[in-house]
Order: sequence, then C-alpha cells, then structure tokens
Amino acid sequence: MITAQNTPQDSNNITWTAENSNPNLLGWMKGSPPAPDKIIRFDNGTYFQFPQMRWTVCHFEQLMPTKSVSRQLFAAVPFEKNELSGIDEVTFIPWGETEPMTWKQSFNANFTDGIIVLHRGKIVYENYSGCLTPTNRHAAMSLTKSFVGLLGEMLVVENKLDENKLIKDYIPELGKSAFGDATVRQVLDMTTGLDYSEDYADPNAEVWQHAAAGNPLPKPKDYTGPRTYFEYLETVQKKGEHGEAFGYKTINTDVLGWLISRVTGEPLTEVLSEKIWSKIGAEMDAFFTVDSIGTPFAGGGLNVGLHDLARFGQMILNGGTFNSQRVVPEAAISTIRKGGDLQAFAKSGYTSLKGWSYRSMWWITNNKNGAFMARGVHGQSLYIDPEADMVIARFASNPVAGNAANDPTTLPAYQAVADYLIEMDK
Amino acid sequence: MITAQNTPQDSNNITWTAENSNPNLLGWMKGSPPAPDKIIRFDNGTYFQFPQMRWTVCHFEQLMPTKSVSRQLFAAVPFEKNELSGIDEVTFIPWGETEPMTWKQSFNANFTDGIIVLHRGKIVYENYSGCLTPTNRHAAMSLTKSFVGLLGEMLVVENKLDENKLIKDYIPELGKSAFGDATVRQVLDMTTGLDYSEDYADPNAEVWQHAAAGNPLPKPKDYTGPRTYFEYLETVQKKGEHGEAFGYKTINTDVLGWLISRVTGEPLTEVLSEKIWSKIGAEMDAFFTVDSIGTPFAGGGLNVGLHDLARFGQMILNGGTFNSQRVVPEAAISTIRKGGDLQAFAKSGYTSLKGWSYRSMWWITNNKNGAFMARGVHGQSLYIDPEADMVIARFASNPVAGNAANDPTTLPAYQAVADYLIEMDK
Repeated sequence: MITAQNTPQDSNNITWTAENSNPNLLGWMKGSPPAPDKIIRFDNGTYFQFPQMRWTVCHFEQLMPTKSVSRQLFAAVPFEKNELSGIDEVTFIPWGETEPMTWKQSFNANFTDGIIVLHRGKIVYENYSGCLTPTNRHAAMSLTKSFVGLLGEMLVVENKLDENKLIKDYIPELGKSAFGDATVRQVLDMTTGLDYSEDYADPNAEVWQHAAAGNPLPKPKDYTGPRTYFEYLETVQKKGEHGEAFGYKTINTDVLGWLISRVTGEPLTEVLSEKIWSKIGAEMDAFFTVDSIGTPFAGGGLNVGLHDLARFGQMILNGGTFNSQRVVPEAAISTIRKGGDLQAFAKSGYTSLKGWSYRSMWWITNNKNGAFMARGVHGQSLYIDPEADMVIARFASNPVAGNAANDPTTLPAYQAVADYLIEMDK
Repeated sequence: MITAQNTPQDSNNITWTAENSNPNLLGWMKGSPPAPDKIIRFDNGTYFQFPQMRWTVCHFEQLMPTKSVSRQLFAAVPFEKNELSGIDEVTFIPWGETEPMTWKQSFNANFTDGIIVLHRGKIVYENYSGCLTPTNRHAAMSLTKSFVGLLGEMLVVENKLDENKLIKDYIPELGKSAFGDATVRQVLDMTTGLDYSEDYADPNAEVWQHAAAGNPLPKPKDYTGPRTYFEYLETVQKKGEHGEAFGYKTINTDVLGWLISRVTGEPLTEVLSEKIWSKIGAEMDAFFTVDSIGTPFAGGGLNVGLHDLARFGQMILNGGTFNSQRVVPEAAISTIRKGGDLQAFAKSGYTSLKGWSYRSMWWITNNKNGAFMARGVHGQSLYIDPEADMVIARFASNPVAGNAANDPTTLPAYQAVADYLIEMDK
C-alpha cells in the first residue's frame, strides 16, 4: 500500500475541497471505456494520488489481487435505526481555533466518505459521500492493525501465543532479523527497536522496500530485493532496544499477521472469518489486498463495509459479545482497554495526543470517558466511547495522510457528540 | 483467461485422477509461506496448468484484480434440503461404452469440485471435493456467457436493445471491425462470421491476442497490441458472412457485455447485481475477473458459489421468478427456450451434440425433456430440465478443457437422474 504525499493544493494550484474532489463529479472510470484521462490503473502510479485516491479507496479489488474474509452463510443482523437530527447541529471548537464548527461542517472538512454513529447499539447518525455507499467497501488502511491486534490478544488468551516468548520461538526465519529477540508483547504494543522509517516523504525510507516487496505485480527484471512481505520482514535490522519506546511501524503488524498464520495454520483472512466475521451478523464479506503469494497485508490491507466496521466496534464496546453471544474473550478486550505504557508512548513524539497510549495495536485516549480508537491514514477511524455508549465508524479520503491533519476537526467533534448523547440520556 | 492444454497424463507419465490431483492432497499454497514448489503465482505461468488449476479455479481473486457482483444487503434465502440417497446408485451407460457407471462414480470421473441437484426447488443431492466448499466461489468459465446472454435478452424485452439493429449503431468504435455490420441477434446467437480462432493448441490463434489484451498485468515494454478487451474487439476482422452458421467464439460475449454497459451506462457487474443477483436470495457476492481498466471479462470471468449457481438456474426453470417474485421477464426466457437455428448449429461441427442448437448464449438440447444448458470448459455446467423439474449445477476441474471429454460421462448421467426423479414422482 503506497500512501500519497499530497497536500490539499495541487500543482495547478487547485485548492481541493470535499466538494470539488468528489470522485462522482470528476468521473473517474465512468463509461465503457472511460475517457483516457479518466482511467485509473494500478500500474500507472496515479491510483493513490489526490484526487484519484478518492475513487481508489472504494475500488482496491479491481486494481490488485485480494483475498476474502467470508461472513460465511450466516444471516446478516441489520442495525436498528433511531436517527437524531440534532447531531448535525452539535458544535465544537476545532483544536487551535476559536470559532465553533458544526458536526455537519466537519463532514466535508474531513473529506468524509461515510460515517455512522451508534448509540446504545442503534444507528443515530449515518451519512455518505464520494465513492462510498452502504453496499460497497472502503480501504480501512491502518484500522486493519487493530483487527489483527485483537486476533493476537485472542490467541494469547487461548494460550496459542505466549506474550513473553520471543518471535524466533514461533518463526525461526525471523531469527536473524530485528524481530528475532523481540517478545510477542513488544510486537503487539509496537515497542520494538527497528531500523525502519515510515516517512513516505523520504525516497530512501525503508517503507519503500516494504512496498516493493509486497507489490503483487511481477518484479522488474533487475529487481534483487525481497519478493514477498515475509521475505522483507526477514531483512529488517535492529535499532535501539526493544521495550523502551513506542514506535509506530506497520511491519510489527505484518509480523503479528505472520505469527497468527503460523500458530493457527490458516491464512489471516480465514482466522478473521472464523473467529469474528462469521459471528457478528456481518452484512458483507470483507477482503484484504495480498502480495504475490497471496499473503494478506496485515499492516493495512483490509477493506470493509461501513456498517460492518461499526458492528465490529459495537461488539468490542459490548465487551466481546454480539447479540448476547460471546465472540471475543472478555480478557482480550480488557487487555486492550487497560492501555499501554504511558512513558513509552510519550517518547514517540505524538505531541498532539498527550496522555494517550498504544496497546495491542489500538490507540487508548485515557480521556475521562475511557475512549479508545483504531486509526488509519487519510482519516479512517473507529472510535469507541464506553461512557457515552457510543461507537463512531468513519471512512474518509483526506488528501493529507497523517491524522494530525484531521484530528483537530475530528477528536473534539467526537467528544462533542459523546457529550450530547450523555446529556440526552440524563 | 488462459485455458490449459493438458491431457490427463503429464510429462512424468503420472496418470492424473480426481484423487491423486486433489489440491488439498497436493498442498498448493498451504503454509506461511508455502514451500517454494507449492507456490502458485499469476505471473509464473503455472496457475492454469494441471494439476495446479484444480486449486486456481477457487482462487482467482487472489491471483488477479476482480470486480464484485453485489447481492446487496438482502437476506439470503437458503434452500430446503431433501436428500435422496438413491441418486448415488443411479446408473447409466457412458457414451461409446457398454458397461454401466453409477452417478457416484461419475463424480470423480468428471473431476467434479461440487455438484447440486435440485428437484422441485429443493436440494436432493449435494457433494463437494477438491478446492470447493459451500462457502467459497469457483470459476464459472463460459457459464458466464449464459448469464450475459440472459441480461442481453432482458434488455431486448425492455426495448433497450433492438435485436435487428447493427452493433455499430450502439458502439460506433466497432464500426470498422467485423462486428460493425452484425446484428444484435447475430451476436446473441453467435452466428457472426469472424476471423478468429479459439484453438488454444495453435500458438498463432487469435485467442492469444485476446488473452494478451485482457491480461490485467502491465504490458511488456515492446508490446504494441491492444491493451484492453474493448481495444481488442475493435481489431477483429470478418470471415465469411454473418447469420449463416453458429460459430462458438467468446468474443461475441465480450461484445454483448460492451453493449450492455453502453446502453445501461453501468458496468456489467452492476447490471447483473441490480437485475438479478440482488433478487434471488443469493448467499454470496459473485465476482468477475477484469482487464487493466476494470472491464469485466464477459466471455468467461464470472466466479460464483455453487448454491447461487443452482439458485440462478432454478429462477430460470421457474420462468423468471424467485419466491414468486418476478426477476426476469418471461419473454426473455421463452426466447432462450425456443432455441436457435438448427441448420446454423449443424454447420458448426459439434458432432456429438446432434440436434442441439444455440440461442442467446445458451445450449438447447432439443431432447424430449426440453433441457437446456450453460456450458464452460473443464466441466462447468448448469443443466435445466423442465420435464423432470430438475436443475443440476456442477463445477469441475477436468484436465481436458473441451466438454467433449466429459460429455460421455455427464450428459447420460444427467438424463438418468432426470428419469429417476420422473419415475419417483409417478
């Protein structure tokens, strides 16, 4: 998965807004065939440039190979709906500003493709734009990590993974890599010391080698590097010590995905299907993008429907049950909710997320409501607020990858809706 | 879609049987990562060789880009089941032989991956092997054509397509190709005169140019040919006259797929979803393989669950209704069932299918039961027998592409089960 380095202003000095970058307006891939300047191909390098990526985030399956996460043949369990028209007028002060913004305004400010607010398990707000509808699927980007992290904690509870064991105990192939002497817990919490830069702006950053290895297209003839995600992971070198600081690096999740496949004997997609996706009344199959040998991209390859993302969040808010049936052991969820090492997180430089921590590939706000999140570039988010009995699932295609760009109009908006729901319930 | 030219005996003189070629036994793509000699990649040319193809037919989505046919969010309607254990012991005489074979023996003889017999709308027989289960999807190969043919007839009934108009009236880009002065009806019934060979054994056959154009991988630097299915169709030249003889050529269906997209303004996948897939209680989304600009391969790219294939057949047997709801106009189905030109078919050289005809991309047996079929290479079949109130849906991975190889142990078997059911009902 290549992440764009775009700003809201392109070389023609167009200032992109949610309205003028709407993929339906721009007509990407419309027509049979589309006009030549409206064609988006995987191999021509434009598919993740802005504004093309606003189309791409709903169409990964037609750009590259994928692998389904089957809902199997169980009946979907539709949400009840109890829409609260007042939410659109909820106001908040964006970080660093003085003038209030409404929830409704934040929808376009964040280039939202779709958002659902659940309260007490019912849909109280739902809205779509761009390429997303209730019946298609959107790239979850790094929300994927939190799905994989939860599966990892489930295997710890089942004693199939020992959090204190070393990675090389499970995957000897990683013995000479940086991961070899890291513990399962350090990988789960991303406190590994890795010589790996995820700075997309640096053409020499290791993330580009990772992307090249995982690219499912045939390699160029002169290519000599690793040819799969697994082969890449074997090459990663150590930098610093494990266990000292939180360092957000996607390859930890790829190792966790490998661990999950190794100890279960099944592809990650199958494990997710069996343990979760077939048990929460999902409306659609999900899917992962894969590398050239069909390995799901654990660090960011999940694509899923918005209803189903919300449904997954609700199951977690419920402490691991769906429709009163146990899906995930409560211990797996309480491990996540108790959060990670505050000092390790403080060293990571997320200055705008003061007091947060990272645990099992989830972001823990440590706010007064006990909220915790899954977060993905370009504005993907799954926000679970136990105090407000609220889940917010949002897909977006913000031109800026880093969530620091949309947090100022996202996090206070989520808190304002939580306050509104708590007040309403009094 | 590249079709293998394999015989049941490979270069090591292994005589392949259903048992010794079972992909689960051979372990293709098992493990994380699979052993090097068990890896099947799209670009290494082995994916459709035998016995690898017995794995591939269930895994196209992880080899190449695809496009979903959404069931949308409607509830699946499971089949009732009333299994008749006697069917396994039904016997028949394979064509050209003297000794009887049982239905049970024919399962492996045909390298069957899964088969369902419906009688009066209920499952009376169901069995799986190889890569197929009730919850995954199998390549339908040229069964695809019959789905597209039905959509074409629906658009004729809706007056969106005029069967007497010329192709160039709808698609000016095809004006200079062989298709330009063919009528919609001639394309629907494959009575076009085309300079196009589908002989996979001939390396100069036009089918290879078609495959190269539709291949979704980046083209080699020195490639100068057409880069999409549509571009290829524009190059096809005429041979003989239209309307004189049936000539089974996949590119007719690709033209029909283009027509459907042109007159509806939607991708073929979307049209199939809206008109049929969302209305028959389908259990799973289907999908098409696509070319590099996302055009579904109308001639053979459909992948679908076996239950859903049977469900589609039952809807047609019902005259176009499902659960008493109208899905397809009755006129579209009666057009198919009345069959095509017998003389045009007789000229085509299908010596073992005497008295059959071809209409709207369906094969009409003209037997005493009024049976008609969709047929795809390597043993894919959907057989509808109105007299026996029977639908047989079968996926297979027979090492021989042409159905002439399995018809001798397929068609008399189907007839024997039809006779069995008719007798039982007396």
